[in-house]
Amino acid sequence: MQELIQDGCTVYIFLDAKRNWIRKVKAGDSFHSNKGIISFDDIIGRPYGIKVTSHSGVIFQIHRPSLADTQISLGRNTQIIYPKDAGTILVETGIGAGSRVAESGTGSGALTYVLANAVGPTGHVYTYEIREDMYEAAKKNLERYASMDRVTMYRRDILEGINETELDAVILDLATPWEVVDIAHRALKPSHFIASCSPTIEQVMKTCKAMSESGKWGMIKTLEVFQREIMVRENKTRPTTWMVAHTCFLTFARSLAETSA
Amino acid sequence: MQELIQDGCTVYIFLDAKRNWIRKVKAGDSFHSNKGIISFDDIIGRPYGIKVTSHSGVIFQIHRPSLADTQISLGRNTQIIYPKDAGTILVETGIGAGSRVAESGTGSGALTYVLANAVGPTGHVYTYEIREDMYEAAKKNLERYASMDRVTMYRRDILEGINETELDAVILDLATPWEVVDIAHRALKPSHFIASCSPTIEQVMKTCKAMSESGKWGMIKTLEVFQREIMVRENKTRPTTWMVAHTCFLTFARSLAETSA
Amino acid sequence: MQELIQDGCTVYIFLDAKRNWIRKVKAGDSFHSNKGIISFDDIIGRPYGIKVTSHSGVIFQIHRPSLADTQISLGRNTQIIYPKDAGTILVETGIGAGSRVAESGTGSGALTYVLANAVGPTGHVYTYEIREDMYEAAKKNLERYASMDRVTMYRRDILEGINETELDAVILDLATPWEVVDIAHRALKPSHFIASCSPTIEQVMKTCKAMSESGKWGMIKTLEVFQREIMVRENKTRPTTWMVAHTCFLTFARSLAETSA
Amino acid sequence: MQELIQDGCTVYIFLDAKRNWIRKVKAGDSFHSNKGIISFDDIIGRPYGIKVTSHSGVIFQIHRPSLADTQISLGRNTQIIYPKDAGTILVETGIGAGSRVAESGTGSGALTYVLANAVGPTGHVYTYEIREDMYEAAKKNLERYASMDRVTMYRRDILEGINETELDAVILDLATPWEVVDIAHRALKPSHFIASCSPTIEQVMKTCKAMSESGKWGMIKTLEVFQREIMVRENKTRPTTWMVAHTCFLTFARSLAETSA
Repeated sequence: MQELIQDGCTVYIFLDAKRNWIRKVKAGDSFHSNKGIISFDDIIGRPYGIKVTSHSGVIFQIHRPSLADTQISLGRNTQIIYPKDAGTILVETGIGAGSRVAESGTGSGALTYVLANAVGPTGHVYTYEIREDMYEAAKKNLERYASMDRVTMYRRDILEGINETELDAVILDLATPWEVVDIAHRALKPSHFIASCSPTIEQVMKTCKAMSESGKWGMIKTLEVFQREIMVRENKTRPTTWMVAHTCFLTFARSLAETSA
Repeated sequence: MQELIQDGCTVYIFLDAKRNWIRKVKAGDSFHSNKGIISFDDIIGRPYGIKVTSHSGVIFQIHRPSLADTQISLGRNTQIIYPKDAGTILVETGIGAGSRVAESGTGSGALTYVLANAVGPTGHVYTYEIREDMYEAAKKNLERYASMDRVTMYRRDILEGINETELDAVILDLATPWEVVDIAHRALKPSHFIASCSPTIEQVMKTCKAMSESGKWGMIKTLEVFQREIMVRENKTRPTTWMVAHTCFLTFARSLAETSA
Repeated sequence: MQELIQDGCTVYIFLDAKRNWIRKVKAGDSFHSNKGIISFDDIIGRPYGIKVTSHSGVIFQIHRPSLADTQISLGRNTQIIYPKDAGTILVETGIGAGSRVAESGTGSGALTYVLANAVGPTGHVYTYEIREDMYEAAKKNLERYASMDRVTMYRRDILEGINETELDAVILDLATPWEVVDIAHRALKPSHFIASCSPTIEQVMKTCKAMSESGKWGMIKTLEVFQREIMVRENKTRPTTWMVAHTCFLTFARSLAETSA
Repeated sequence: MQELIQDGCTVYIFLDAKRNWIRKVKAGDSFHSNKGIISFDDIIGRPYGIKVTSHSGVIFQIHRPSLADTQISLGRNTQIIYPKDAGTILVETGIGAGSRVAESGTGSGALTYVLANAVGPTGHVYTYEIREDMYEAAKKNLERYASMDRVTMYRRDILEGINETELDAVILDLATPWEVVDIAHRALKPSHFIASCSPTIEQVMKTCKAMSESGKWGMIKTLEVFQREIMVRENKTRPTTWMVAHTCFLTFARSLAETSA
């Protein structure tokens, strides 16, 4: 049974790498760009993945928004965890179906959205955000895109503590992650993962030092991930001219059990 | 309720980045290395994440094997999809709890294992392997580590077709992916993802050309992902001296719907 | 004896990484920017490396244009060999004081300028350019910045041959370098270097194939060079957000002697 | 006039990227490897760039050692400035024919050798080394490979001062470069370059801080340079599996004139 585009659903309208939009479909309304107009009535009832021609004769693709499309869209105008870093977090920490994860800050909700997709209906994401404005913006974003039955949002400073225990992972995207590592340790199952994302090397140094000195963490390691696109065109195949040089450093560690021999 | 190390379970024994082992715990038996012996009886009944001292006085950490530990371990002596690439595949294709995914070849089962963790009990992984020896080795590996109720293994050439339809994603790790793209298209829901992993640029060129000429694929793009470790030590912080320069190129595309305007 | 800024000389006016200019100093005239005006009379007779305050109170640095400043300036609006690639070419080929080098195309003259600085008064650069407009633009550029007694410019297709023999190096920055490798071989001393710069991988493949099939080249290798800036600011040290992902691939080979055993 | 291999000269014997040797040719003697023996008498009087077949039937190439070959050879078993970094230093600082440059420490002499090649007979390299053993080893290396009329070696701590003034560049490869930046400033012409090579980020931070706080330096910037090889083989073109992930960070700055407005 093929899923069809319906009134009220969200579509990804694609022209090229720089010109693409996520839009809510509304019967009777239309999408406007400087490459022409697409009437939503022309796509309602048709499958995702179609090509449509605008009134000015330009061909657009209409897709289901992918996880990464939505993640990037949620993060427009804010600093987000990029797909390349989110993927590394998922695989390094092993977050998957059924995982129970805490995260702070919520930010725009972009990573919360990815985590909610990963943990599924049998897992849960607990997300902490201290700033009122960020909390409200993320709430609006997540209620639109995520399955909220698997997400609990707190408008609270994670420094006051994590409500949950026996978690599978704690993800930090904070200005001062080194202040939270002890709190994270108490909330984690033994031998499970903390992941901390920091743009500056001084944050990484302080976080690694705090973890190392506490004696509560094993296998502390810091990674950076780069991604480059290759433009594959006949007789013109070459990497793109520009790439993102830095988003954040990713520090991972595993919680040691309280009792050590 | 803390999970404890038990007879028959699998542990990750860690000394440093180069000296670490995945071992099955067996009551009455012990782990031997040139840094000393650890009796399994000394760790049974204790939590994961402990430190233990070998008979020669060297301290080891005993951890639950992480997803990435197991993935790398499964791939020992074969070419595997690395964690950095597996993470990008998960996030770019949006594979998560509940996804139905086909994969070929099974290889050592390392990626199958990651996919099974991601799709959870409400999703499913269908994996195709043509080589008898690989199939048998992967079966042994997966039965040991993965939840087999969410995995179907075929000993068959994927060129003969994919049994499933309406899939959320198809992942190819094959010598000749360009021969399979039409088959993959028929098995996918519209506007869903194919991901193809190839070590050589000629494979990438042929695959992109086949997809492009068929007119069945949108938003074809090729990425390469790099990962570098930063050694964070007080007054000695620096990236590692060596890194992996290349594993494979990752080509992604979305299936277009059969009917186009 | 300190070199002083004089009427008619060229200065590098620096505000920050994005706002900097190379200008000819002219007595009685001034430099205008949206951060204020600097009267050239205020800097004439003073040393390079001074700070001056514009009429709007903004501080600029006045420097001698460096090799790389001039190289980048010459290449404005055209595709140039970047400093990172030029440096690799110099060290891999060993071009230095006294070297005799041929180059094609001249392009904007940016690499010619770097080569002329490297070979010095006892070496020479022979540069070939087929396009009249490029030749004239490069001539103007080089007459302004380079020591022309060590540069010979040809307005000619290098495919018609290289006038010189017994060269130390041949540098190609052409659309079809594979057509020129035999010509380059005849012009080189045995066991000396060709370096070819190509943006696309197909160009690299054809060039390597032509060199390999001719049997005239040894130790063919292809490199790509990346450069990333680290912003070092107290408690905010981090790599820049964007970097150049690709300029060109650099292919090097050594000429084999005609007589082989 | 073709240069011929002679008794007493140095050759680069190449089998593949991992098996290659720099050897002194000695009449009556021979080169031994596990791929067979080459009698030096068989190559004396022949041109560089020949192929020779060993007694076991394996073909070797005999080349003139390139600048980079010698540089890497000089640095065997020590930490050297790699070609990729040396090239960036040359182009960023503009060191070329006629430049007068100070360097510390001398180390194995590998960078001294590159600098001597660059500055030519009309320039000069002044190199400072505090350690007796390093000084003696570098002296032996440089007397063998470099034109010593353009090199002055000091066995002295550069912290005691640089003898020269009005230099074009100062290159530091020291454990504590931040202690030397004032000394370097006094030795440089205004608006000329210091380049400092440091493996750790803490060294970079201290050096940038010292330069910034002194007020004597403009346009301070830190780069890292990566180099990756592409293996171009028909239908098997791909980057190499491993690459150097880190050698050193390169910090550059320009000396400000003492009098500022």
